[in-house]
Amino acid sequence: MNPTITAFKKSPDGGRGLARDMRVRWALEEVGQPYDVNLVPWEHFKDPEHLARQPFGQIPTYEQDGLTLFETGSIVLHIAETHPGTLLPTDPDGRARAITWMFAAVGTMELVVIEREQFILFEKDKPWFDDRKPIVDKKVRDRLQRLSDYLGGAEWLDGEFSAGDLMMVEVLKRPASALLLPDYPNLAAYVARAEARPAFKRAFEAQHAVFVAATAQ
Amino acid sequence: MNPTITAFKKSPDGGRGLARDMRVRWALEEVGQPYDVNLVPWEHFKDPEHLARQPFGQIPTYEQDGLTLFETGSIVLHIAETHPGTLLPTDPDGRARAITWMFAAVGTMELVVIEREQFILFEKDKPWFDDRKPIVDKKVRDRLQRLSDYLGGAEWLDGEFSAGDLMMVEVLKRPASALLLPDYPNLAAYVARAEARPAFKRAFEAQHAVFVAATAQ
Repeated sequence: MNPTITAFKKSPDGGRGLARDMRVRWALEEVGQPYDVNLVPWEHFKDPEHLARQPFGQIPTYEQDGLTLFETGSIVLHIAETHPGTLLPTDPDGRARAITWMFAAVGTMELVVIEREQFILFEKDKPWFDDRKPIVDKKVRDRLQRLSDYLGGAEWLDGEFSAGDLMMVEVLKRPASALLLPDYPNLAAYVARAEARPAFKRAFEAQHAVFVAATAQ
Repeated sequence: MNPTITAFKKSPDGGRGLARDMRVRWALEEVGQPYDVNLVPWEHFKDPEHLARQPFGQIPTYEQDGLTLFETGSIVLHIAETHPGTLLPTDPDGRARAITWMFAAVGTMELVVIEREQFILFEKDKPWFDDRKPIVDKKVRDRLQRLSDYLGGAEWLDGEFSAGDLMMVEVLKRPASALLLPDYPNLAAYVARAEARPAFKRAFEAQHAVFVAATAQ
């Protein structure tokens, strides 16, 4: 049986590939695994049926043969492990380092990116917005600078493209990070390299088609 | 060779077990793996020597036989995988679900807990502190409520104690979460069960001894 993932029935990002099902779609395209999509309307995210899949009421989830997973890092790691030799190095040390970058993407980089994103989205009308914005800007910039210094002129984070790059690029592509990337040209080029991968393009088109169809209804 | 981890030479938490090396020490104690500790003064975190181990200039790191890892989730997963049958279930589906909880700990729960922690630590003198605090409180409470609903009366998140519980408990123990736990009695009891584990106690004593020694100097 093909795995089934959940995604927004109508993504609030307007089909720009910012919803987190994009990470899972991209990983599945990289390994050549066909999949089905269960489109869940946002107003049903907190229904018992969806909470049974995802205790925090978010998308995406991954279901296959009785196994249900959530958290994009975990799902992408599962896809990588069940399709050896594509998204993770086969040598144990390289594999462990790639997984380190997966955790760095969600634990270190996304933490500050989401704080900035939510601040800009939900507090822009607050009286403290202008005075506080430099605080959240600095948190993101400090980590972008460290990542830029680390990456240097390398193509990917550690050798060949891996699930660590996939996760990091997806975090860097969120607007709260992406709009700062012109100040970090090697990171901007790194993201562009990832976006040029055929698997990325197929995943992007697939999620975009969902939004187009939802809008046409 | 035993692995070597890095930790604060003098932890800003006063030896209360809040520095993230605690997660790694606990995992190593659970699997019975002796380890060495390289104490790094905070003022050297951004030195080239440490940045070569940890590109974001943080602790802990894990070094063994030429392999260097960072990110507590990645390190704990590596410890679990190199000591089978202790911190991860041996059946593939249970293993994948435990890893899901590891990512949920750092990607979903810690994200909001650290935002609240940093807000309280670094913005308490700002003019917006009182008006904005309900926003960060709600983010943490919403996720604690979801986790509490999910856990219900279960002992651990998914069957036996796993690396997923270890990571989640360590996030819940941060004050920005822990001080809210009396409102979620099943989560408070969950944390207390974890703290009662002999491996947790040994790890706690080991990190506490470092602080006592540093203070005595």
